Amino acid sequence: MVDVSEIPFEGVQIIGTGLLGTSLGLVLSEKGVKVWLDDQSPSTRALAADYGAGVAEPAPAHDVDLVVVATPPDVTADVVSGALVDFPNAIVMDVASVKATIEDTLNQSGADLTRYVGTHPMAGREKGGPTSARADLFTARPWVICANPHAGRAMLARVTELVLACGATVHHMTAQDHDKAVAMVSHVPQLVSSVLAGALLDATDKELELAGQGVRDVTRVAGSDPGLWIQILEHNSGFVSEILAGVADDLATASQALQDPDAKGATKTLAEILSAGVSGVARLPGKHGMSKRFASLTVVIDDRPGQLAAVLTDVGDIGVNLEDMRLEHSPGAAVGFVELSVQPERVHELADALVERGWKIAGERS
Amino acid sequence: MVDVSEIPFEGVQIIGTGLLGTSLGLVLSEKGVKVWLDDQSPSTRALAADYGAGVAEPAPAHDVDLVVVATPPDVTADVVSGALVDFPNAIVMDVASVKATIEDTLNQSGADLTRYVGTHPMAGREKGGPTSARADLFTARPWVICANPHAGRAMLARVTELVLACGATVHHMTAQDHDKAVAMVSHVPQLVSSVLAGALLDATDKELELAGQGVRDVTRVAGSDPGLWIQILEHNSGFVSEILAGVADDLATASQALQDPDAKGATKTLAEILSAGVSGVARLPGKHGMSKRFASLTVVIDDRPGQLAAVLTDVGDIGVNLEDMRLEHSPGAAVGFVELSVQPERVHELADALVERGWKIAGERS
Repeated sequence: MVDVSEIPFEGVQIIGTGLLGTSLGLVLSEKGVKVWLDDQSPSTRALAADYGAGVAEPAPAHDVDLVVVATPPDVTADVVSGALVDFPNAIVMDVASVKATIEDTLNQSGADLTRYVGTHPMAGREKGGPTSARADLFTARPWVICANPHAGRAMLARVTELVLACGATVHHMTAQDHDKAVAMVSHVPQLVSSVLAGALLDATDKELELAGQGVRDVTRVAGSDPGLWIQILEHNSGFVSEILAGVADDLATASQALQDPDAKGATKTLAEILSAGVSGVARLPGKHGMSKRFASLTVVIDDRPGQLAAVLTDVGDIGVNLEDMRLEHSPGAAVGFVELSVQPERVHELADALVERGWKIAGERS
Repeated sequence: MVDVSEIPFEGVQIIGTGLLGTSLGLVLSEKGVKVWLDDQSPSTRALAADYGAGVAEPAPAHDVDLVVVATPPDVTADVVSGALVDFPNAIVMDVASVKATIEDTLNQSGADLTRYVGTHPMAGREKGGPTSARADLFTARPWVICANPHAGRAMLARVTELVLACGATVHHMTAQDHDKAVAMVSHVPQLVSSVLAGALLDATDKELELAGQGVRDVTRVAGSDPGLWIQILEHNSGFVSEILAGVADDLATASQALQDPDAKGATKTLAEILSAGVSGVARLPGKHGMSKRFASLTVVIDDRPGQLAAVLTDVGDIGVNLEDMRLEHSPGAAVGFVELSVQPERVHELADALVERGWKIAGERS
């Protein structure tokens, strides 16, 4: 593995400062690379700059040796074509979620594809925009590189080094193979999640109060931006449509089996569906993306504004760094819970110190 | 709110030491209640006892004032009937995931239902068994109490106290209303997750290497025990079948729209499905049964422990009550974001007051 401090570029123009563009800007800036940011929205660009992803100024073309196009898929091919002209000394890579339609369009455009490489970091979140960006977004995530037939070897090696320097794992495949794979592991799950979440619109508030972690997990990605997803799905419609039809059929079969659960074969049908699910989920490779696992501590607090600040002040005084936190608070209840995520090796110490200061611990998870 | 240390029972027999039975045993034992454990599998019972959930010995019937039946739904009614006879001084409650079929069977059995109460803690995990048990399993989770018409008021009050003492939130509803609600928020999501996970069996290893957090979340519950889930689904077949048919139809519609994405109306169909998903997932209450919708404000903070406490102290001083909050924090970034959820009518005032105190607002959502 390449030393993570080695970024084989000196000046990078990022076009599109959403989640991916800003996150990449954070990584590169942190490692001392000069980054220029561009976005069609001046406020989005300014926010990415404030966050530390680079400077919101026009880049001098001769100082740029890499352009990263991080725009929605509908405009990616056009922006790549433009960048190949505007930055004649730079490698131009994109990070769009679909690859074959973009490569086809570029092939037809007559652009100089010896300097272009299509890539896709598998590092989305359900919340987009620069405020969701994080420097560790790519850590331990797969990052696909789809080399077109014209791409130079030396250029591919530099892009590969960049991907590794971001902490991601490199996966080489063709644009077609990429699109088929992401149809299964990303695009179909998105639509399934959206459809299930849409069904929640028929439920009453009282019914939804019973929602537990299961339905939250299944529907989490349904919160994603529809505008972006329409583009992604339409750019990968063939593969998505086919897999989705199979999922719809299987759900209809399950529904029919439950219409008459005493009928011959009904239980067997359900058993097969549930067992296939167990086998399928077991095939997913070990969890990516969490290079660090945190321990958590749930502290009971009174439901008054000052209490949360008080517990966090104590955490600061104790000297333990907070990695994440979540407030659990039931309207009308006299107490709330705050879940503190910290480094596993500090969790016992923090629990003891908080108890000593009079806080009540409701739970601890290492 | 009841003092969390008050458990209104002195001797508890737990029948069935899986995830729920063992977790409840852990809570009760921790609070000094005498707990006897029973399970048809001696090794499972012994494991629960080793884990600290109680003693794996026969209970003296006269010392037991509560029996908790935590068996799979197929046998729950029978075990409840038996317990009502074996423990004549005890309240008998069950914790099965379905309620109407069990209540119906008990009604027809002629058992003394003045001492029975059906309940359901919404606190499953995809991994069952005593080794997955945890004392904080019920913390801040909904726990449904389905009082049958014969149940005594004093008895219901004691069961309610027990539920609160476990840290759960109490939800009273009829068995029918419960089953309809869990069909939507639990049983249908389970089948959808299983079917999608089953589709992964057609993917290649290389394709699955691209799996990110999205597909993992959507398929997580697919790892659940098929044997238990067949029982749950068959005991709630009517409601599940109906909702599932609608989900299958919507997925078929999406698949058709993608078969010819350039056809008139195809984009509109996809947009409607994706937007309904966004609206649906937004209806899920905050982890705890929050039925209100809040406005949110994202504040930029320096990545130092004291900063978060400082902003919360200011929020307290300004006099706006915090309903929920979330920290967004990127290791290595110079700043973090804290998302504050407040009553919609206070959000502008809070934003103005925070800006006046020198804080920078990255976003506001009403």
